[in-house]
Amino acid sequence: MLLPTYDDVTAAAQRLQGQAHRTPVLRSSTADSLLGAQLFFKCENYQRMGAFKFRGAFNALSKFSEAQRRAGVLAFSSGNHAQAIALSARILGMPAAILMPHDAPQAKVDATRGYGAEVIIFDRYKEDREALARGLADKRGMTLIPPYDHPDVLAGQGTAAKELFDEVGGLDALFVPLGGGGLLSGSALAARALSPGCKVYGVEPEAGNDGQQSFRAGRIIDIATPRTIADGAQTQHLGEYTFALIRANVDDVLTATDAQLVEAMRFFAERMKMLVEPTGCLGFAAARHAGLPLAGKRVGVVISGGNVDLRRFAELAAA
Amino acid sequence: MLLPTYDDVTAAAQRLQGQAHRTPVLRSSTADSLLGAQLFFKCENYQRMGAFKFRGAFNALSKFSEAQRRAGVLAFSSGNHAQAIALSARILGMPAAILMPHDAPQAKVDATRGYGAEVIIFDRYKEDREALARGLADKRGMTLIPPYDHPDVLAGQGTAAKELFDEVGGLDALFVPLGGGGLLSGSALAARALSPGCKVYGVEPEAGNDGQQSFRAGRIIDIATPRTIADGAQTQHLGEYTFALIRANVDDVLTATDAQLVEAMRFFAERMKMLVEPTGCLGFAAARHAGLPLAGKRVGVVISGGNVDLRRFAELAAA
Repeated sequence: MLLPTYDDVTAAAQRLQGQAHRTPVLRSSTADSLLGAQLFFKCENYQRMGAFKFRGAFNALSKFSEAQRRAGVLAFSSGNHAQAIALSARILGMPAAILMPHDAPQAKVDATRGYGAEVIIFDRYKEDREALARGLADKRGMTLIPPYDHPDVLAGQGTAAKELFDEVGGLDALFVPLGGGGLLSGSALAARALSPGCKVYGVEPEAGNDGQQSFRAGRIIDIATPRTIADGAQTQHLGEYTFALIRANVDDVLTATDAQLVEAMRFFAERMKMLVEPTGCLGFAAARHAGLPLAGKRVGVVISGGNVDLRRFAELAAA
Repeated sequence: MLLPTYDDVTAAAQRLQGQAHRTPVLRSSTADSLLGAQLFFKCENYQRMGAFKFRGAFNALSKFSEAQRRAGVLAFSSGNHAQAIALSARILGMPAAILMPHDAPQAKVDATRGYGAEVIIFDRYKEDREALARGLADKRGMTLIPPYDHPDVLAGQGTAAKELFDEVGGLDALFVPLGGGGLLSGSALAARALSPGCKVYGVEPEAGNDGQQSFRAGRIIDIATPRTIADGAQTQHLGEYTFALIRANVDDVLTATDAQLVEAMRFFAERMKMLVEPTGCLGFAAARHAGLPLAGKRVGVVISGGNVDLRRFAELAAA
């Protein structure tokens, strides 16, 4: 297994030029006061389709050969990866088919179709998603792009942290949400290259700490689908590529509770006027509550996305 | 009456350097598609204390003489101006007293006190605010800074539009929320200097169109306090300075309905992940609904602030 390097992140950044938004880095003097530190929030909730996932999807698809482009791309996802693949395929003018479970939120199905993708609904209790995907890929010659465990996907995700370091310079610590590990492993490549002394922390929901367990055990540990409001981090296990890179480049894996995520959502809305999805709150929640000595430090926090239904947001943050 | 010029805006920009945030200019491909235009949103909801008002307040206070600083600043406001003055006074190390009506929201009273200002509550039905302010100013030697009709205040507000033009270049049209006219008159000075062909539009709530009436009549027209969700634009009349500058530099004054403001609030939250207060939605609502020929044009929209209570936001936008 050949692991991607920072060179793959810089190559991805070139492919994303003019395609991905260069998202803003926002500051908050209230957040600085709360932590006694200087915080730099990299706001991927302002990325196209509302999450960092566009970076990895577009990078992967733009490396397709002419034959691959003609046949198109296949993905399974009920979340941000579906929209990222659909939008990237539309931009690059290739067909996209997305397998989505029958109980996926109608808004996400509509958004994915809105980007022009074919949505194939399957019954997650009766049908085997992997077999369905393999069948479709074989029949149509489509290329399957997984949501995180792929060198081009994770290299693309690393471009967000690259932009952060390029803009603000070196940092003492960087907090990154952790689901399957695409964002974290790519961010860690950027940190190692651009700010070698920076501590890199992945942050998971407390109820789904498979990454923390895996990091400490030194092997990939599988868990049942966790119950947490952080729906972007309900993965059951890390990938082969992402785990190898996380072991090599990450300093620790931390957790945050759902209550801490709600507190952070409210903070972002009230004090920084941003909508952040629960998963996007993981980094700040851990920076605030994990007990690390951050006083006087320069601290980066990656906000991964903002795709939360407004009613759900109101239930969680405005209650 | 000596009217401020663009030189006062550039001088204000120098004073604000390192004090005000340089707020991001955000794009949305969905907004572009809706209007068939290129939109550039200048996001003053990300300004310190959550609104553009910090710019004008800080600019005015930083021009105080040593004697004025010692005695401090006086203001009356139940809204963003109160917090802007309180925060600016704290930064500059001078006393601040803010007169607030007895029925001001407790959160705003608390926020103003949180910035270290003395809050003086008066009964808006029994006491004369102006007389109270004059008495205090006389007794303590404090300098009164009004919320909009002041050369230094409006010159400071113009720095937001200056940053917008500096960042994106010339525009064909610029939409600016209009209450008392500080933001609009300052923005128009910047537009005239930096993008002379740009049409500049002020936008008021339909229920409070005193500015539109005044613009068309050629004299300041006074109205009763309008009923609208745009609480930052409930002013009853323009000021002497702001009206003169608006007459000279603004192309038209438009209006938006409360329903259009709610639609825009929801759009900003769902598609751009931003919390915008109703007043901050005026520009986009008019760009979308006022029937101007914007197809193919480069259009700037100033979002004035994001200070909306989360429950109120949920009632309006997530209903």
